[in-house]
Amino acid sequence: MQEPVSEYPLLEKIESPTDVKKLSNAQLVELAAEIRHKLVHSVAKTGGHIGPNLGVVELTIALHTVFDTPKDNFVFDVSHQAYVHKMLTGRQSEIHTIRQYEGLNGYMLRTESEHDCYGAGHAGTALSAALGMATARDLAGTDEEVVCVAGDAAFTCGPTFEALNNIAESTDNMIVVLNDNEWSIDKNVGALAKYFNRLQTSDAYEHIHRKATDLIERVAGKGVRKLVNRVEEGTKGLFAPSVLFEEFGMRYYGPVDGHDVEALISIFQHLKGRKERSILHIITEKGRGWEPALANPGKFHGTGPYEVKTGATASGTPTASDVFARAVTDFAKEDEKVVAITAAMPGGTKLEILKKELPKQYFDVGIAEEHAALFACGLATKGFKPFLSIYSTFMQRAYDMIIHDMALQKLPVRLCMDRAGLSGDDGPTHHGLFDIGYLRHVPDLVFMQPKDEPELRDMLWTMANYEELPSAIRYPRGPIAGVPVEGEPKLLEIGKSEVVEDGADVALFGLGTLFSMAKETRDALEAQGISTALVNPRWIKPMDTTCLEEFARKVKVICTFEDHVLANGYGAGVIEHLHDAGIDVPVVRIGWPNEFIDHGNVPALRAQHGLTAEAAVEKVLKALG
Amino acid sequence: MQEPVSEYPLLEKIESPTDVKKLSNAQLVELAAEIRHKLVHSVAKTGGHIGPNLGVVELTIALHTVFDTPKDNFVFDVSHQAYVHKMLTGRQSEIHTIRQYEGLNGYMLRTESEHDCYGAGHAGTALSAALGMATARDLAGTDEEVVCVAGDAAFTCGPTFEALNNIAESTDNMIVVLNDNEWSIDKNVGALAKYFNRLQTSDAYEHIHRKATDLIERVAGKGVRKLVNRVEEGTKGLFAPSVLFEEFGMRYYGPVDGHDVEALISIFQHLKGRKERSILHIITEKGRGWEPALANPGKFHGTGPYEVKTGATASGTPTASDVFARAVTDFAKEDEKVVAITAAMPGGTKLEILKKELPKQYFDVGIAEEHAALFACGLATKGFKPFLSIYSTFMQRAYDMIIHDMALQKLPVRLCMDRAGLSGDDGPTHHGLFDIGYLRHVPDLVFMQPKDEPELRDMLWTMANYEELPSAIRYPRGPIAGVPVEGEPKLLEIGKSEVVEDGADVALFGLGTLFSMAKETRDALEAQGISTALVNPRWIKPMDTTCLEEFARKVKVICTFEDHVLANGYGAGVIEHLHDAGIDVPVVRIGWPNEFIDHGNVPALRAQHGLTAEAAVEKVLKALG
Repeated sequence: MQEPVSEYPLLEKIESPTDVKKLSNAQLVELAAEIRHKLVHSVAKTGGHIGPNLGVVELTIALHTVFDTPKDNFVFDVSHQAYVHKMLTGRQSEIHTIRQYEGLNGYMLRTESEHDCYGAGHAGTALSAALGMATARDLAGTDEEVVCVAGDAAFTCGPTFEALNNIAESTDNMIVVLNDNEWSIDKNVGALAKYFNRLQTSDAYEHIHRKATDLIERVAGKGVRKLVNRVEEGTKGLFAPSVLFEEFGMRYYGPVDGHDVEALISIFQHLKGRKERSILHIITEKGRGWEPALANPGKFHGTGPYEVKTGATASGTPTASDVFARAVTDFAKEDEKVVAITAAMPGGTKLEILKKELPKQYFDVGIAEEHAALFACGLATKGFKPFLSIYSTFMQRAYDMIIHDMALQKLPVRLCMDRAGLSGDDGPTHHGLFDIGYLRHVPDLVFMQPKDEPELRDMLWTMANYEELPSAIRYPRGPIAGVPVEGEPKLLEIGKSEVVEDGADVALFGLGTLFSMAKETRDALEAQGISTALVNPRWIKPMDTTCLEEFARKVKVICTFEDHVLANGYGAGVIEHLHDAGIDVPVVRIGWPNEFIDHGNVPALRAQHGLTAEAAVEKVLKALG
Repeated sequence: MQEPVSEYPLLEKIESPTDVKKLSNAQLVELAAEIRHKLVHSVAKTGGHIGPNLGVVELTIALHTVFDTPKDNFVFDVSHQAYVHKMLTGRQSEIHTIRQYEGLNGYMLRTESEHDCYGAGHAGTALSAALGMATARDLAGTDEEVVCVAGDAAFTCGPTFEALNNIAESTDNMIVVLNDNEWSIDKNVGALAKYFNRLQTSDAYEHIHRKATDLIERVAGKGVRKLVNRVEEGTKGLFAPSVLFEEFGMRYYGPVDGHDVEALISIFQHLKGRKERSILHIITEKGRGWEPALANPGKFHGTGPYEVKTGATASGTPTASDVFARAVTDFAKEDEKVVAITAAMPGGTKLEILKKELPKQYFDVGIAEEHAALFACGLATKGFKPFLSIYSTFMQRAYDMIIHDMALQKLPVRLCMDRAGLSGDDGPTHHGLFDIGYLRHVPDLVFMQPKDEPELRDMLWTMANYEELPSAIRYPRGPIAGVPVEGEPKLLEIGKSEVVEDGADVALFGLGTLFSMAKETRDALEAQGISTALVNPRWIKPMDTTCLEEFARKVKVICTFEDHVLANGYGAGVIEHLHDAGIDVPVVRIGWPNEFIDHGNVPALRAQHGLTAEAAVEKVLKALG
């Protein structure tokens, strides 16, 4: 839906950053207001990262006023906060398509615009990548500026720290903007979050850093330290609070009001061309200018469509995450050895339920998947039962620990991979389409996927009671099959499939989320008089080879369904096993092609790539000859 | 060979840590000398991490004097420095078997002893794991001590920092020993290395931290700051140098002479039961007590067998690493866009050659694989040609970046996976047996493995000139086939195999390191009158499906060879493709079973697991019927 033109007199004239540079400071303030209005109304329809983007309106305007993309480089950490950047770099007329099928991506994308020099979607990559760019610039002897924009949450990530440790040896010239809003996706945790907070409140700061402050006040005129009064109780530092960054060879500026566009412009003008390693600490409000997001920053970090006036969102069927968190919380009530760990995702993983009901058995370690996995291993050595809930795509961060610490030591950590399978709107940085590929060959690990919500709980219960090896489970974003969870959980037999329907001609193995598609395929085949078995495999590893071989010797065609790329996937494992067993039967595989899948709604993408019952029926019929 | 008994009068009586506790301080000093002598003479025959172990003799004695394993927990980072611990916990009579087939493992191993509470082999895991243990202890309400021993190099690793950021929120009671020897595997890099150095030299320290120092001097009596005089020029801190750790909620003690066993015992006695988060900074000498290791700490971090008197080691055929580093250095001379990155391994990867000849095109980022990969991505965005040389097993740390940053953005980073395949003596933490499994399904990546040294260089040359996508290569520890490299490198055609011999009955696809085994198998089969084709596949991805299909339609049996686990491996890809192509031919696969492979010499392990030409011949004959 097109917004009325008159609402955005300044914004509608911005075709490129050159147009931003033509505006007066007063007009830039108006522009900011227009952008906010447009953001709130547009994202209301598409869903998206509204909170973070409302927080960086002035910052993004100031950056484009002072620097010149694409010559200069802006590297945004995670880059979910790049909507404003997209609007100022020729994409404002498409902003209503963001995250939609064939529309703009919700993150920066090198293929989408020459102004997007580096894409992301996962946190903690910006500082390292920007350092690579600055080093390349130094080696090539060119003079572009490299500006890295990272939230305070990025400083809970290991890679950010590894980069910090290397800055001074790599370049003399880089600007880092620390966008401090006290939140990652949820409220920030850890020592650094406290530290940043103290930077804002410490009396010592004024005293010891008079010189730096003077400099900024001279340059910026105003806006310094005027913003929020967020005094937190706790130990005050006895030392200069910017010391941490100075340790890493950076010059610290701030804190500065991140919503004072004039102040930001003055500081960036000062920093531009200075050839120093500077860190500019700005204080922003997540959700700035829109009451519902200010009132509930966690919810409106990233959201589905909402009502502009109230922020009300649709509430639907319980998601797999809801079922997961409810189940683990219930188990934890009965067994104090059950604990759960999230990497900054109490909302997304729904572990907020556990946090509320049993706070001692709940751990949020920040965006620190490697530490989360190792911490879980440590707990497991002493007989605790850690459930580690991390999105499938982010579990890639902990890959080494899964092999080197968990599997090799047979430590029974429970890996709970949320958002496994196609994630939809968020696109390729968020799809969970590789986890079978990267886990199937890891020895001493069991791995499963449930066909519906009750089975999800049964599997979690089985994991809670399985102490022999690490176990992993994958479940999708949103509901699985929408089946209510009732009664008591059941223990499942490790490595035993569920044969739902027998059949003589074809056997369908519908893994997890795609079990319902397999069922639909069966109905269609049976309607054509083809006797079709339907199996819920349950176990990716160990595979139920007895069941598989039995059907493989009996039927003419086997068809596997998986919400995963085909290469190295579940069906590939079926082929591999049957080949080794010397059983010759055609295996038709339904799954994602071996490529990165775009963003968009799940049904459209499934239809595009042949993940439908119709496509399956056609392939099975063809294989039957 | 048994050492003469009389050399070790104290050591030979140590059957468990209880026996250490019975010795006087003077005897402990003698014990340290015995241990050093035993270490130097024993590792001379087995090879191993002599330098790090010589550095922690007094530390390990002091730990076992004060604390009580297995009740108390020692978590050693990397745990290559655990030989002394092994000697004091009932394994001294087996120390001559270390790293040998069926002997002691070179690292801590939970299955080897109840005194080994946590195994490792990769750096940066100890602090997180120890934090998990301390948290479990707090939750369970027990009173054991958790002591984490980490080198300064661990503080270049992201996970260590993620753990630091969580310590204060997780436990009130943990002891961290910072074993500072200024080295990781090579000389340490980065801001933190400088910082630790300054902790030793800063005048400010004495002044501001009088209280802490007084405490230690009162407790320890002596040994404080008396050791090495390593004054490095550079910026001195203007602030209390222990601030960094205090930021993370830890109480800093030190620096202390890590070779003064009495001082260490006094401090540990003081720290035991204090219920605080303490960090004890000790200064040690890598290679202490043995001149060759002191003179060359990089070489003697980990080494093969050597002559005790001189430290002389055998020098043999150039290794794949030699060929790699020589080639990349030569390319870099001709093309200033060629750069190379190591994660603290200039010696292991042989990039020390590039470092010496073209220091500006060489980057050592510390043990920071994630940053290394991201930094390479940043360089690639600006047309540089980064070669990222990381051992196959450590590349697991950068897995997310390979998918999310390199492949998804099609950034032509060159992944050079050294130590791919069985690594031998170091064991399962160091084997590179999973990289095909974790990379084969990653879209937009090419992946290859050379059959000999000249082809390794040709492949690197092809990678240098291939700008379209990220490329990966795997090559083994040691030589590949021992073929000298001469003349000019050649460009290889992407995705095109080399058919070495044609044949009508059987086709052997010998990937990389195992090409020679395939050749041997061919000779044996031909000798029996079986017409056997021999193919050097070269490309794991994209697979040369034309060549594969041609042979598959022609021969009766295909046999693949790979230095990788079978699941998700190269041969699995062959089966997957042939099945989809509808070609029915038996594929016999030679490779490692789907389990963790122990340490030991390569021929013994290959024989044990059926990776021999004899086994291949037998399997092929069986498949032929």
